[in-house]
Amino acid sequence: MASAPVKIVALSGSIRKGSYHSGLIRAAIQISAAIDGLEVEFVDISALPFVNTDLENQNGAVYPPLVEALRQKIIEADAILFASPEYNYSLSPVLKNAIDWASRPPNVWAGKAAAVISTGGGFGGGRAQYHLRQVGVFVDLHFINKPEFVLNAFQPPAKFNADGDLLDEGAKTQLKELLLSLQAFTLRLRA
Amino acid sequence: MASAPVKIVALSGSIRKGSYHSGLIRAAIQISAAIDGLEVEFVDISALPFVNTDLENQNGAVYPPLVEALRQKIIEADAILFASPEYNYSLSPVLKNAIDWASRPPNVWAGKAAAVISTGGGFGGGRAQYHLRQVGVFVDLHFINKPEFVLNAFQPPAKFNADGDLLDEGAKTQLKELLLSLQAFTLRLRA
Amino acid sequence: MASAPVKIVALSGSIRKGSYHSGLIRAAIQISAAIDGLEVEFVDISALPFVNTDLENQNGAVYPPLVEALRQKIIEADAILFASPEYNYSLSPVLKNAIDWASRPPNVWAGKAAAVISTGGGFGGGRAQYHLRQVGVFVDLHFINKPEFVLNAFQPPAKFNADGDLLDEGAKTQLKELLLSLQAFTLRLRA
Amino acid sequence: MASAPVKIVALSGSIRKGSYHSGLIRAAIQISAAIDGLEVEFVDISALPFVNTDLENQNGAVYPPLVEALRQKIIEADAILFASPEYNYSLSPVLKNAIDWASRPPNVWAGKAAAVISTGGGFGGGRAQYHLRQVGVFVDLHFINKPEFVLNAFQPPAKFNADGDLLDEGAKTQLKELLLSLQAFTLRLRA
Repeated sequence: MASAPVKIVALSGSIRKGSYHSGLIRAAIQISAAIDGLEVEFVDISALPFVNTDLENQNGAVYPPLVEALRQKIIEADAILFASPEYNYSLSPVLKNAIDWASRPPNVWAGKAAAVISTGGGFGGGRAQYHLRQVGVFVDLHFINKPEFVLNAFQPPAKFNADGDLLDEGAKTQLKELLLSLQAFTLRLRA
Repeated sequence: MASAPVKIVALSGSIRKGSYHSGLIRAAIQISAAIDGLEVEFVDISALPFVNTDLENQNGAVYPPLVEALRQKIIEADAILFASPEYNYSLSPVLKNAIDWASRPPNVWAGKAAAVISTGGGFGGGRAQYHLRQVGVFVDLHFINKPEFVLNAFQPPAKFNADGDLLDEGAKTQLKELLLSLQAFTLRLRA
Repeated sequence: MASAPVKIVALSGSIRKGSYHSGLIRAAIQISAAIDGLEVEFVDISALPFVNTDLENQNGAVYPPLVEALRQKIIEADAILFASPEYNYSLSPVLKNAIDWASRPPNVWAGKAAAVISTGGGFGGGRAQYHLRQVGVFVDLHFINKPEFVLNAFQPPAKFNADGDLLDEGAKTQLKELLLSLQAFTLRLRA
Repeated sequence: MASAPVKIVALSGSIRKGSYHSGLIRAAIQISAAIDGLEVEFVDISALPFVNTDLENQNGAVYPPLVEALRQKIIEADAILFASPEYNYSLSPVLKNAIDWASRPPNVWAGKAAAVISTGGGFGGGRAQYHLRQVGVFVDLHFINKPEFVLNAFQPPAKFNADGDLLDEGAKTQLKELLLSLQAFTLRLRA
């Protein structure tokens, strides 16, 4: 693959220590090391303030420093990997907040490729994924359709350890397939 | 009406000064003063931390003090009025965050009546309302169906002043109808 | 229970012979026989024409005869039980068609209680249930929130026989709980 | 443009005479005549039977003849234009039915580009568009994000005549922009 590598920024919607979603991203980074032409970088969104236009245009900057830093990371990325927990059948506030800040003008998501991965009880986060996809229409993200990645975290055997590290080999294989699909779709869109 | 008044707690998903959604709640409070058996109280959710289970069971309290205070307000309410802006076709992080905190065990929303009001461009916040209703299934809120309240904030004449006060008489009438519907539905469920 | 029994009309969104959804309704009817004050009646919606206003006001009737018959059944019901398959992440055309016909003026769903049950692969029909609930906002149905009933039809042991009869005892228990919840909610709304 | 023209198949979810959605497709066909490298063909879906696996593998054919004909049209298309009315906040049965038939194995939608246009009261059909996009995830359609086309049919001046012909010049301009966006996105995906 002679073209520039596909750069993926990965965001976790859960900020607790031991977060399974942060663990999914660590697994994605490990997996990507063995994929030619693919780079995955974790970007921390846990310390952003709540989105609030009163915080804009202060101290000579359009956006607060942490917001500007996030926006710069998104600008430099080709594609986004959302590790999106489902809280009460919809998105986590932390993840939605990062999306909203980076959508402020100019919307830095526009035209990029994206994928979403979730874990949890019940549908494994599935309901929140469709809310995220609806958000993607407005912020102009192109989500891959297949494969969809949802992982029931609580069916035995254990899928994660106490640190949130992904243990399940089947899930790692699915995650690799998703990364390859996102890479391929990003390259299609790049043309 | 001899029965106890219907107590509504009103939450605003927008925290900027001059927020139209906070203005809608102020209008609802004014309107409710002329409705027998109905009380509307604004409860501030702007200073809550992001939902994070690492913050639970600290310093001898199950939840952080501001979260406990919110939860107590919800417990004492019969019904909830959500002033819900639409950010990128879904819920605002501030509002979702308050919902998520109060859903932590025991879920204090369970069984209460609810309504949602929105304003903004486009569909006036309409897309986010359906996401909120899906959240309501899991947290066990009973939303009224009718009337739905969405207000295009930007079609002339001006709907709000610079402080976010609702100016539009037609919108006030619709808001009154919504409050009466929420009151009536709450009483039906109380039986 | 001295009050009139709660009359439930049950509709199946799948019309094939051996439909699991029709089987769920047969199970609901059997279960209801042992519940005091509850009646469940299956109403066939398979032969309706596609909704089309060109078919209205023909031959001296506002609606085609089969549509009028459906509408009359809905009018006489207190509550609706939707056995709703998920086709391609949304509602089956047959079920949506029945809903649309009965929503024509005057909308005969208005104000009634409702519940939804689904089975299938993946999330067991879960995604379509949220679409149905959104439909319920406009047609003014009051869905119960809990319990939600989704049944993965393909995980062993077999949940249905070849005729579509429900075999699974756990699912029957859940179905009974759903019927009791729908009955109780209907009575709350009746007050 | 030396490459093969982009072939779009257009489906109308409304089958009444004078349908505005069929009118939108006629307008799209007219507009496409002036766009280099773009062809739009209307495909009638009004006479399909309701989707039903009992109708499969009859008389030596996997699918009924009208279904096979639809499937062949989809196979030959590069992209799909859905004229999707909103019935009770979701999809029309006629449109969903066509989608479901063509998704039967092998799913002939897979990998194609798509766009959706709607008209009506309220949000002009907007709520149904998000349900359609969720369907697109499973059947593997790649919807364009921008522009979104919704048209309030009932705000003066008249948008359509009694035959359902689109009169509004602003809407025609928006429709042209949507077609150009769909063409461009199809070519990006083709690469």
